[in-house]
Amino acid sequence: MLKSNPLARLTKILSLSGAVLTSVMFSSAAMAITEQDKAVLEQLKQSSLKSDLSYQLIESLTTEVGNRLMGTEGDKRSIDWAVKKMKALGFDKVWTEEVKGTYWQRGHAHAEIVSPYPHHVVVLALGGSVSTPKGGLEAEVVHFETLADLKAAPDNSLDGKIAFVSYRMTKHIDGKGYGPAVGTRVTGASVAAQKGASALVMRSVGTDNNRTAHTGVMRYQEGIKKIPAVALSNPDADLLVNQLKRQHPVTFKLSVDTITHHDQSAVSANVIGEITGSELPDEIVAIGAHLDSWDVGTGALDDGLGIGMTMAAAAQIAQLEQRPKRTIRVILFAAEEVGLLGAKEYLVKRNDDVSNHVLGAEWDFGMGPIYKMTPGVGADALNSIREFAQVIAPLGVALSPRNDGVAQSDMSLLTKAGMPSVNFAPDGTDYFDYHHTENDTLDKVNPDDLKINTTIYTLFAYYAAQAPVDFRK
Amino acid sequence: MLKSNPLARLTKILSLSGAVLTSVMFSSAAMAITEQDKAVLEQLKQSSLKSDLSYQLIESLTTEVGNRLMGTEGDKRSIDWAVKKMKALGFDKVWTEEVKGTYWQRGHAHAEIVSPYPHHVVVLALGGSVSTPKGGLEAEVVHFETLADLKAAPDNSLDGKIAFVSYRMTKHIDGKGYGPAVGTRVTGASVAAQKGASALVMRSVGTDNNRTAHTGVMRYQEGIKKIPAVALSNPDADLLVNQLKRQHPVTFKLSVDTITHHDQSAVSANVIGEITGSELPDEIVAIGAHLDSWDVGTGALDDGLGIGMTMAAAAQIAQLEQRPKRTIRVILFAAEEVGLLGAKEYLVKRNDDVSNHVLGAEWDFGMGPIYKMTPGVGADALNSIREFAQVIAPLGVALSPRNDGVAQSDMSLLTKAGMPSVNFAPDGTDYFDYHHTENDTLDKVNPDDLKINTTIYTLFAYYAAQAPVDFRK
Repeated sequence: MLKSNPLARLTKILSLSGAVLTSVMFSSAAMAITEQDKAVLEQLKQSSLKSDLSYQLIESLTTEVGNRLMGTEGDKRSIDWAVKKMKALGFDKVWTEEVKGTYWQRGHAHAEIVSPYPHHVVVLALGGSVSTPKGGLEAEVVHFETLADLKAAPDNSLDGKIAFVSYRMTKHIDGKGYGPAVGTRVTGASVAAQKGASALVMRSVGTDNNRTAHTGVMRYQEGIKKIPAVALSNPDADLLVNQLKRQHPVTFKLSVDTITHHDQSAVSANVIGEITGSELPDEIVAIGAHLDSWDVGTGALDDGLGIGMTMAAAAQIAQLEQRPKRTIRVILFAAEEVGLLGAKEYLVKRNDDVSNHVLGAEWDFGMGPIYKMTPGVGADALNSIREFAQVIAPLGVALSPRNDGVAQSDMSLLTKAGMPSVNFAPDGTDYFDYHHTENDTLDKVNPDDLKINTTIYTLFAYYAAQAPVDFRK
Repeated sequence: MLKSNPLARLTKILSLSGAVLTSVMFSSAAMAITEQDKAVLEQLKQSSLKSDLSYQLIESLTTEVGNRLMGTEGDKRSIDWAVKKMKALGFDKVWTEEVKGTYWQRGHAHAEIVSPYPHHVVVLALGGSVSTPKGGLEAEVVHFETLADLKAAPDNSLDGKIAFVSYRMTKHIDGKGYGPAVGTRVTGASVAAQKGASALVMRSVGTDNNRTAHTGVMRYQEGIKKIPAVALSNPDADLLVNQLKRQHPVTFKLSVDTITHHDQSAVSANVIGEITGSELPDEIVAIGAHLDSWDVGTGALDDGLGIGMTMAAAAQIAQLEQRPKRTIRVILFAAEEVGLLGAKEYLVKRNDDVSNHVLGAEWDFGMGPIYKMTPGVGADALNSIREFAQVIAPLGVALSPRNDGVAQSDMSLLTKAGMPSVNFAPDGTDYFDYHHTENDTLDKVNPDDLKINTTIYTLFAYYAAQAPVDFRK
């Protein structure tokens, strides 16, 4: 069902709209929103389902800015872009909060299988990787099927060799294949270096069969030699495995060029915009996304989608005749990709006190239709969450029976700091085909699915700003 | 139906097998093959549907050789590979026939949108393109939606500009979107040069949304200045169109490096192998494919598939206790991609006389399931073709009511020279996602669909070698 024609899905939702909301009976009248609020929600649903504002924002960001890794020109341009757009969209307050970090800069990356059967292969340096020595390095490949196998290799067994981990990420609707795959990316280089390896080559953390490698952040362990680390595209990883199967030594050549600038060399910013609440302006409903992206593709999905959806949601609400009761804050976090630096700084600036953030939700999970909502709120607010679930049920969203929802990405740190949160889960089956690759571009965004997801965030923000309930635990 | 699970399709076919063939009633008993031949066909069907030989051949070719454009090391290696494989598979005769041509060599290709919004974009030089001047060229882009629009531009209107044609190939089961798209690739550079352009940038002839450009052959018109010509990946073409929509001048930088070696600089060969006929050895059933590929990807689909299918078909027949009556000849043509040079030389060597080729079929149309057979034979042979159609109907192949079938690619020249032919049409919907790109790799081959397609060629070759009929017109 989730994969059915998005336009047909949108058309069906639009044709059903109107009848559903007003017929809903709520179990606790005391906590229910007013009839007037219901009418506003219906109005917002109609206008948002018909609006292509979120798509236009993503088109603008990807066309006029493109990718935007912390420290790059794209990063700077994206901050200007976001500030200008928020102002143009009628936000009441727009400001930036500085975030500093290390600027890591990608240069070239060339790789080839030298023998027994020469092939050019496609690699990307992992984010944070050091360079190879000038002129590159050439060494025999030692194959490990998993990170656990690499960890089990004896000390010095990889002296002068290239470690290759071929583990392939599996596809699931909830993206659960990412966890078991990403460990090699984050920690693999130091594990390999500890065994004497001169480089780590890993199969990309990705579910596609394109010759586009997947980058992503890696970390070096203190006190262990830093070796270059690259991801190989899936078809090239298959090829390398097939050569290794033939039981002849396989020699690999790698040349990677990167620059890690000094600490604090990158100056970026969280960009924050608000629709100020009319009655409870100090109570904040937080929606957001991350403004940075990897330095490949145009960051349309990761996280152009979240930027477009949350800015458009607030902008729709700004068009209403009256401001909602609580403040709606859109936070576009800096430097998520390199370690949630924007979210960390956001908390530091507030001494970890987010007690005025009454409910929050981030979007950083791609282009699939949202099918599930999991709250993480005080028990007293659950009836209100059920009420909201009925508002968005016609949009295809089911309410999880659990109450342990954590906001996505950056905002997970706010959840940990005590912010009541909602997690909206999409069909993430195909997201890791594109995640962190040159293929993360506008064409992967389905405008009709996007309209529905944007509407869910619009209704969420308005509902949370109006609900006569305290979502806190 | 064609897109249903290939394994389920294969399993169903295997479970139905046996019952169907013997119950068939033929309208012309005189032209029917014998009961014994029917039993052999059934045996071949069973063994071929269970065999992964064609897949193993493609795996071997793509892993041990990879891409193989005329003149390259890969081309030379592929010839050795094919000769050795045919001998190992029990072919009775194996030989090569030299084919000469021009060696065109790809170097680097870099492109970027310089202004108003800088972006790196993905391009591939078209096959045959000249280089840009040293250091590349930078110029304003002039946008044309179609080749016809470019043709309609006034003389000198593109002086010093880059012509950009954004026409997008459409997707169809029969690949009919290729024709309207490919004209720009073949002729566009000279059309643009005639108007004064310094380069041609075109949207790739391809139906995907990957940041992998599609190469392919282009030609310069005599007497017109040769300008560099490149294909842009589809997402990058979208991006360029979106920048152009903003009505500001768009500046593009292009640096392409190629070498066109002298005439006859490339020495390649057709590789030919035969299963010699037991009764009519001079009557040839020709099946084949092209051995060369573009110099990107590993040529798994184009035309590793045809190589694997036709070699495996002959090898299956070579395993029978008895050789069939007629000779089965597998022709792996050289240099198809650069202009059917192998097919032309094949005809030259035979003074255009292929009257001993009693029936032929090539495979050069990707990985989709075959769903239709179109004969091009003498009217007297149509009953026999109908008989054969009943043999392969359980494999999902319908008989076209037409009798104007032309063999694919290289063998189309043999059809023109008089060879009775059969064209097998597959579901080509997704083929042009990968055609002539770095993404043409082994993972795109579905082993179960391949078993069925290979079986169709196996049954075709055996049937044609045994049928008591003259297929000629």
